[in-house]
Amino acid sequence: MTVVETDQTQQPGSDTADEPSATVPVVEFDTHPDRYRHWKLEVDGDLATVTLSVDEDGGLAEGYALKMNSYDLGVDIELYDAVQRLRFEHPEVKAVVMTGGLEKMFCAGANIRMLAQSSHAWKVNFCKFTNETRNTIEDARESSGQTWIAALNGTAAGGGYELALACDEIVLIDDGSSTVSLPEVPLLGVLPGTGGLTRVVDKRHVRKDRADLFATKSEGYRGETAVDWGLIDATVARKSWDEDIAGRARKAADASQRRDGAGIELTPLDRQEDGDTITYPYVVATLDREGKRVNITVSGPEGAPPTDADAVQTQGVDWYPFAVTRALDDLILRLRTNEQELGTWVIRTEGETDKVLGYDDQLSELADYWFVHETTEYFKRTAKRLDVTSRSLVAVIEPGSCFAGFLAELALACDRQYMLEGAYVDVDPDADPAVLVLTESNDGRFPMGNGLSRLESRFWGHDDDLDAARKRKGERLDAAAADKVGLVTMALDDIDFEEEIRIVLEERASLSPDALTGMEANHRFVGPESMETKIFGRLTAWQNWIFIRPNASGPDGALRRYGSGQRGSYDYHRV
Amino acid sequence: MTVVETDQTQQPGSDTADEPSATVPVVEFDTHPDRYRHWKLEVDGDLATVTLSVDEDGGLAEGYALKMNSYDLGVDIELYDAVQRLRFEHPEVKAVVMTGGLEKMFCAGANIRMLAQSSHAWKVNFCKFTNETRNTIEDARESSGQTWIAALNGTAAGGGYELALACDEIVLIDDGSSTVSLPEVPLLGVLPGTGGLTRVVDKRHVRKDRADLFATKSEGYRGETAVDWGLIDATVARKSWDEDIAGRARKAADASQRRDGAGIELTPLDRQEDGDTITYPYVVATLDREGKRVNITVSGPEGAPPTDADAVQTQGVDWYPFAVTRALDDLILRLRTNEQELGTWVIRTEGETDKVLGYDDQLSELADYWFVHETTEYFKRTAKRLDVTSRSLVAVIEPGSCFAGFLAELALACDRQYMLEGAYVDVDPDADPAVLVLTESNDGRFPMGNGLSRLESRFWGHDDDLDAARKRKGERLDAAAADKVGLVTMALDDIDFEEEIRIVLEERASLSPDALTGMEANHRFVGPESMETKIFGRLTAWQNWIFIRPNASGPDGALRRYGSGQRGSYDYHRV
Repeated sequence: MTVVETDQTQQPGSDTADEPSATVPVVEFDTHPDRYRHWKLEVDGDLATVTLSVDEDGGLAEGYALKMNSYDLGVDIELYDAVQRLRFEHPEVKAVVMTGGLEKMFCAGANIRMLAQSSHAWKVNFCKFTNETRNTIEDARESSGQTWIAALNGTAAGGGYELALACDEIVLIDDGSSTVSLPEVPLLGVLPGTGGLTRVVDKRHVRKDRADLFATKSEGYRGETAVDWGLIDATVARKSWDEDIAGRARKAADASQRRDGAGIELTPLDRQEDGDTITYPYVVATLDREGKRVNITVSGPEGAPPTDADAVQTQGVDWYPFAVTRALDDLILRLRTNEQELGTWVIRTEGETDKVLGYDDQLSELADYWFVHETTEYFKRTAKRLDVTSRSLVAVIEPGSCFAGFLAELALACDRQYMLEGAYVDVDPDADPAVLVLTESNDGRFPMGNGLSRLESRFWGHDDDLDAARKRKGERLDAAAADKVGLVTMALDDIDFEEEIRIVLEERASLSPDALTGMEANHRFVGPESMETKIFGRLTAWQNWIFIRPNASGPDGALRRYGSGQRGSYDYHRV
Repeated sequence: MTVVETDQTQQPGSDTADEPSATVPVVEFDTHPDRYRHWKLEVDGDLATVTLSVDEDGGLAEGYALKMNSYDLGVDIELYDAVQRLRFEHPEVKAVVMTGGLEKMFCAGANIRMLAQSSHAWKVNFCKFTNETRNTIEDARESSGQTWIAALNGTAAGGGYELALACDEIVLIDDGSSTVSLPEVPLLGVLPGTGGLTRVVDKRHVRKDRADLFATKSEGYRGETAVDWGLIDATVARKSWDEDIAGRARKAADASQRRDGAGIELTPLDRQEDGDTITYPYVVATLDREGKRVNITVSGPEGAPPTDADAVQTQGVDWYPFAVTRALDDLILRLRTNEQELGTWVIRTEGETDKVLGYDDQLSELADYWFVHETTEYFKRTAKRLDVTSRSLVAVIEPGSCFAGFLAELALACDRQYMLEGAYVDVDPDADPAVLVLTESNDGRFPMGNGLSRLESRFWGHDDDLDAARKRKGERLDAAAADKVGLVTMALDDIDFEEEIRIVLEERASLSPDALTGMEANHRFVGPESMETKIFGRLTAWQNWIFIRPNASGPDGALRRYGSGQRGSYDYHRV
């Protein structure tokens, strides 16, 4: 992970009169195990170990030391990198042990001084990214046959325990003192920020009154009580520790059905920045600061897909579906973190529909091939990032676009879809009108957090419309057809189109960013809820609220006072 | 509804430096149709009409006029009264038409000036109560065979449209101008506060991109578009209006299977207040301001239940299950609204277990009798109020208590349950130890908002424990047995009990009220989500967050500036 030291620093804004406003540098998400300052990634056959040994002086910003294996965004960027490499560079790894490099303390959670000096937006975005990484870890067993085991060789407090909660098994050392705990409520006056409360009751099935005791007892629990309540799976003495953990990893790896193969090296991402333009392979983003938006254009593939699995493997990171996903992933993370004032993302595609469909077919044909499978899962996770992104998402579908199959998912993930009927007469009256093509990619390959496909979500409560849309899969739907099927918000001819888009984007840019964020979060997930949507929807919203309350973040709030020797001063009115 | 003009006014507290702090009088929830200032309730055979004609000068507090049928808490208190009377005084009513008494404007929603001058806690509590009343309306058809029809004879904006959304059918007059709208996002920078966003997509099944258009277009929609999108069920011209609405009401009433009978008059509630003690039939609450808590004691019935349905009917409001539910309902509402600093409610019972079980049996035996059925539903709703109450709930189970059947639900609704093993040796060493008795009342009669019984919620993810608990129904479980079954948090003997309770309550009173509110909201609902839990959990949390953001409630926020001719001044950073 690199911090670019430039003049272009973020101005996190002052949310309240007393909002902390530490300046944070532009954040990049690129890193490599050779450059890790906080994690160690070791691979040994079908097993891997990730070890947390935080460099106290390696914080992303000034003003805090990452003591006791506490973390900031920079630590989590390395973890995400390791998680990705274990998916792509090491398809042979079937079990991962997560442990700590300190004595007595596995991880103290998110660094409190970092939180105390951060703006509200920074805290919320930090929690979102860490949540996504935890979800990626959690999804490893089901989607990639890779089991994660938390080997807690010391206390796991707060975000440290939440890291463990994302793993499939939690083992705590029985050393007479190490505990698991969620001390946020009693010590900081906030909630655990990375799914802790939800995973305790909904994943670990801890009874609610015990969850209440646990989340209000700052010192946490250990031993048989922690096992009985379900907070951990086992407590193991130091003398049998190594053997026990190794045995669990061995057993998990032996039970794995992970698709194996030779790994794909994640070479450095080819990203070019020139003023307000960011260019990746297949993705270009133009930052329109005046319009408070980003214009994102995704290019289709240049040719037909490689002929077979071996050829796909040879292309590696350059294989189109992987390359475009990786570019989108990086772009989403960068824009979210570094460009908070650009509230609308306008998404376009350009390229040949048939070529996209060629690759879309390949996702299906080679679905069992490990790299194709992992790329499919990667695209799933990246599209989910869009679903929880606090930006208005608008798809613009014009002649020359290629919203087909997995690229059509980008349109369906948007809050609105605008499609031009016919051609721009002044530009190219003979251009082929835009089409939109649905495939299995829109109806099951990339489920949303609520477990539904984007097509199912779109037509929730309208089974007939869903059936009708499903019958049109594979067809090249022009604007009139797409409108009739219900895939676009508006289909307009070129006399109205540009004016409408202009008005829509200007209007959007004038609205309250907070109200839009809440509205979009509520509209994007209909129907069933899952643990994931609970974490991003319900828990996150509560946490956002609590984060900004004076009891936490005011000058006398618990979060700001932590470490000063003074407890938070609370206004005790319940809300 | 009465506003008591005393010196004991609320001090809503200053949540932020610039928090509005209008003084609001102590609020009472008692009213009667004869005293309504804002609603008219008319019953004609099996049909009823509730008509909104808000008295502009009838606001609960100073500083705003309730123009254009806008409402405040006082207006909603009357609506809740009408809803209750239609359940209990008018079991013959099978369809209810909700309409307005103004021309062109059905209801403009919550009064903006009222919101702008209210404290954060007041706004949130107001939204909670209105949400509960909407849910009670929404539940009328399924639970009581009573269909509600929104006959919108003018524009329904914001909360006005949310009132309509709670009804089973929505008919909008086709007068060339009247619309339905949710102008909160574009005009006020907040979300609709009463379930609007959720009901639009999850109940009315409006497609998400259309929901986005709708919720950002302040003038709203009308005509065929509104029907096509599902925002309303029909648009009807003025000349056929009366006939159409009457026809719909007739049809709904004819299709109803509502259990009929002679109504029970809801005579004034017998509530006595003496200093910090509030006494109802069967319920006493003592306000401990120093300890920041309320001690609530529910008394069991004095004798055996009346012999049959006729005898139940004769007892009417004095029939124990009804009387105790009504007292609890009123107490919950009063404490929430008027006593925000009392953050913990300690719930005890006293009485004879057998007598409670006698009534519990009667709930089962006479389940088909209309009044017993309606009382059961009323208890269900009241227990649900506890589930969404932002107070820590602690059950204390001691000798002389009667936590059995439906009264045991109160213990299960609590965040923690403490049970004394044996007797208080110093007080009455020969006292019978406390017991806890489960019945069907804990396992299906009173489902929570998530659709689960409180027993199912408690043992979510532990089917064996659930089965084991179910096998113990009807048994008198002492502390050891209740602990083993998993019904109590702790069973302690009297040497430790009082000290433990003291520590627990003192500790609780010291924690951040915001963090506790968020934690409790997340622990109380495990497993599946419903529209109701989405509204109270996800949507409410987002709304709370947005309400307190400077973009809405700061001095230059949209909510505060509304009506001044100036738009809100936004910090455009996305969070």
